[in-house]
Amino acid sequence: MRRTSFASMTCPIARSLEQIGDWWTLLLVREAFYGTRRFKDFEASLGIAPNILSTRLSKLVEHGILQVAETTASGKALEYRLTDKGRDLFPVIVAVAQWGDKHTVGAKGSPIRIVERETMKDIAPLTVRSQDGRALEVRQLTVVEGPGATKADRKRLEDARKRREEQARGGS
Amino acid sequence: MRRTSFASMTCPIARSLEQIGDWWTLLLVREAFYGTRRFKDFEASLGIAPNILSTRLSKLVEHGILQVAETTASGKALEYRLTDKGRDLFPVIVAVAQWGDKHTVGAKGSPIRIVERETMKDIAPLTVRSQDGRALEVRQLTVVEGPGATKADRKRLEDARKRREEQARGGS
Repeated sequence: MRRTSFASMTCPIARSLEQIGDWWTLLLVREAFYGTRRFKDFEASLGIAPNILSTRLSKLVEHGILQVAETTASGKALEYRLTDKGRDLFPVIVAVAQWGDKHTVGAKGSPIRIVERETMKDIAPLTVRSQDGRALEVRQLTVVEGPGATKADRKRLEDARKRREEQARGGS
Repeated sequence: MRRTSFASMTCPIARSLEQIGDWWTLLLVREAFYGTRRFKDFEASLGIAPNILSTRLSKLVEHGILQVAETTASGKALEYRLTDKGRDLFPVIVAVAQWGDKHTVGAKGSPIRIVERETMKDIAPLTVRSQDGRALEVRQLTVVEGPGATKADRKRLEDARKRREEQARGGS
């Protein structure tokens, strides 16, 4: 089943999802952060069929998340490396990993730890903060229209606002 | 095409992806953060077919990300609300939204802004930090085995470490 395209949506979440492609693709990005660069290494780490791997790597290159280079080290093998845009996916990977650690991992604990190289200490949980550094809870936040909002976006936000007010009146 | 199941993988990223389900599902979670609760409102906001919406909402309920309640406000309609586990997905949503704002949104800017209710100011970019609050760059971090690592996890991390060393020696 082919999922519906998100490309026509203006929402930056939907657009990101379109570019990242699918969940498997995020695991390719994870592997790239682990230092995996060659086709055969992605194949071995993920146990993924070559034709599918090839399609997904190409999609990441097409969207500028990975770039291809010829390795100088060992002959002619191609290497796939994260671009700056790809590297900026790091908070997404960390957010997903921390949620997984908290909610999907059993009593034995997480199989991996993301640590600071110098201290070998675990990183802190990602926290949504104000510009001046205060930690913010979900209930302290709201979504408002941005400079690029279309008429449809404004209607969607307005509808959501009305629903919240209605629910607040209902006391629920 | 059915994607391969991630359930057998120990990686918390892979497990999270298994539970979140697919990208569309993350948009349902986004809608829930916007205050959407009723089936018909999810349907209207996302323009999604009822049978598909129903399957995806059920999956989120099954994984404890949403819970179902009967609304007291207006008769017998069911409401889908985020659980604590669901609310903990907020950093994932924010991470994806901020990446999208930076890399997928055109010159007009983002259609939405996530702001602090009290000040109406934009939130800060999510930043990976040490436990004592220092901002950390990707290159300052590494992945090491955690308490729940299996033999296969250890081998995968060891292989990745060897590849990084090999690449460093190759000067690339």
